[in-house]
Amino acid sequence: MTRQLAFTAEAGKLKGVLRQTVLTEPARRENSAEHSWHLAVMALALAEHAPPGTDIAAVVAMLVLHDLVEVDAGDLSAYAPDFAQARQQQAERAAADRIFALLPADQAHSLRRLWDDFEERASPEARFARALDRLQPMLENVRAGGGTWTAQAVTADQVLAKVELIEDGSASLGRFARQLIERAVRDGILAPAQSRPADQQPANPADG
Amino acid sequence: MTRQLAFTAEAGKLKGVLRQTVLTEPARRENSAEHSWHLAVMALALAEHAPPGTDIAAVVAMLVLHDLVEVDAGDLSAYAPDFAQARQQQAERAAADRIFALLPADQAHSLRRLWDDFEERASPEARFARALDRLQPMLENVRAGGGTWTAQAVTADQVLAKVELIEDGSASLGRFARQLIERAVRDGILAPAQSRPADQQPANPADG
Repeated sequence: MTRQLAFTAEAGKLKGVLRQTVLTEPARRENSAEHSWHLAVMALALAEHAPPGTDIAAVVAMLVLHDLVEVDAGDLSAYAPDFAQARQQQAERAAADRIFALLPADQAHSLRRLWDDFEERASPEARFARALDRLQPMLENVRAGGGTWTAQAVTADQVLAKVELIEDGSASLGRFARQLIERAVRDGILAPAQSRPADQQPANPADG
Repeated sequence: MTRQLAFTAEAGKLKGVLRQTVLTEPARRENSAEHSWHLAVMALALAEHAPPGTDIAAVVAMLVLHDLVEVDAGDLSAYAPDFAQARQQQAERAAADRIFALLPADQAHSLRRLWDDFEERASPEARFARALDRLQPMLENVRAGGGTWTAQAVTADQVLAKVELIEDGSASLGRFARQLIERAVRDGILAPAQSRPADQQPANPADG
């Protein structure tokens, strides 16, 4: 029990890890513990949008655990450049090595496997969990009237690129996300796809 | 999906409901979303302390949902007087009626049943979930060097009265909680059992 409680205490630190996402009630940045809980609620509420046969209990457990590594690695914007994403992935793997090892070996193994599955998107459970993880910040951005989209000058094409991950986990949630982005552009809370800057335009406009 | 997303959005308000519990990292009051998430982590980490055959997936789902009613009813101290507890129970029931009804009828029914089970402690799942819900604030109080015990002038006998609920859900967690309280008294972060005030002493001290 000592090791299980050490893991529990370590997990509690996630309450202090701030995410980019802006909440409206109260108006402040969300922390990773709240985010993880909200995803678990979504998995229960939106369960029927997972492919038939998806084990929702596994999805919920995965979502509860998926951000534990941020205790060490912190949160990184989904729109950070590739080199930063690669560094983050390495830091998260090291964090998983440390944090799951706080548990007795058999549990360390089974909970770590859930985390690896989430990362690798190898199962329908992981793909559905990842879809919810992508959708939740979009919903909060709409609620906040722009949120990180405005703060980080994100454009619709960047958000649409993330929708593939949602479609991969749930066809109906993917359709919903596309509509949500279209509406956000129409409502002026998300900038439309960026046109290429002038110096990247073809020399002869007739070619473009 | 509209109704499922309305439920999800409503749930998000729990991030703004502050509990009595004091966190150490960062030093501030915990909110109910974080608390619910931490309990879900505990259910996964401490699963083997539930009676054999307990459905841990149901425990996790129950813990994710158990405090949703606080969106309307707020959080009340476990040491509040009986009349306040009765009023709170009524407010929580009304909140459950409203909030679960945001979902499509079949889901409203099945998730409400989990909530009712938690309240009534009718199943081993509910009794284990309730045990964790009692244990978590004790762990945070020890970590905070007194926390709500100090702030609300709670004494060891009051805390020990809550341990029965822990023992009822898990024998080993109950034993652990008793040791934790003994240690807290020894360490001076929890006041020992209060002696009866003078006017309640027997007239003849030889009788007492």
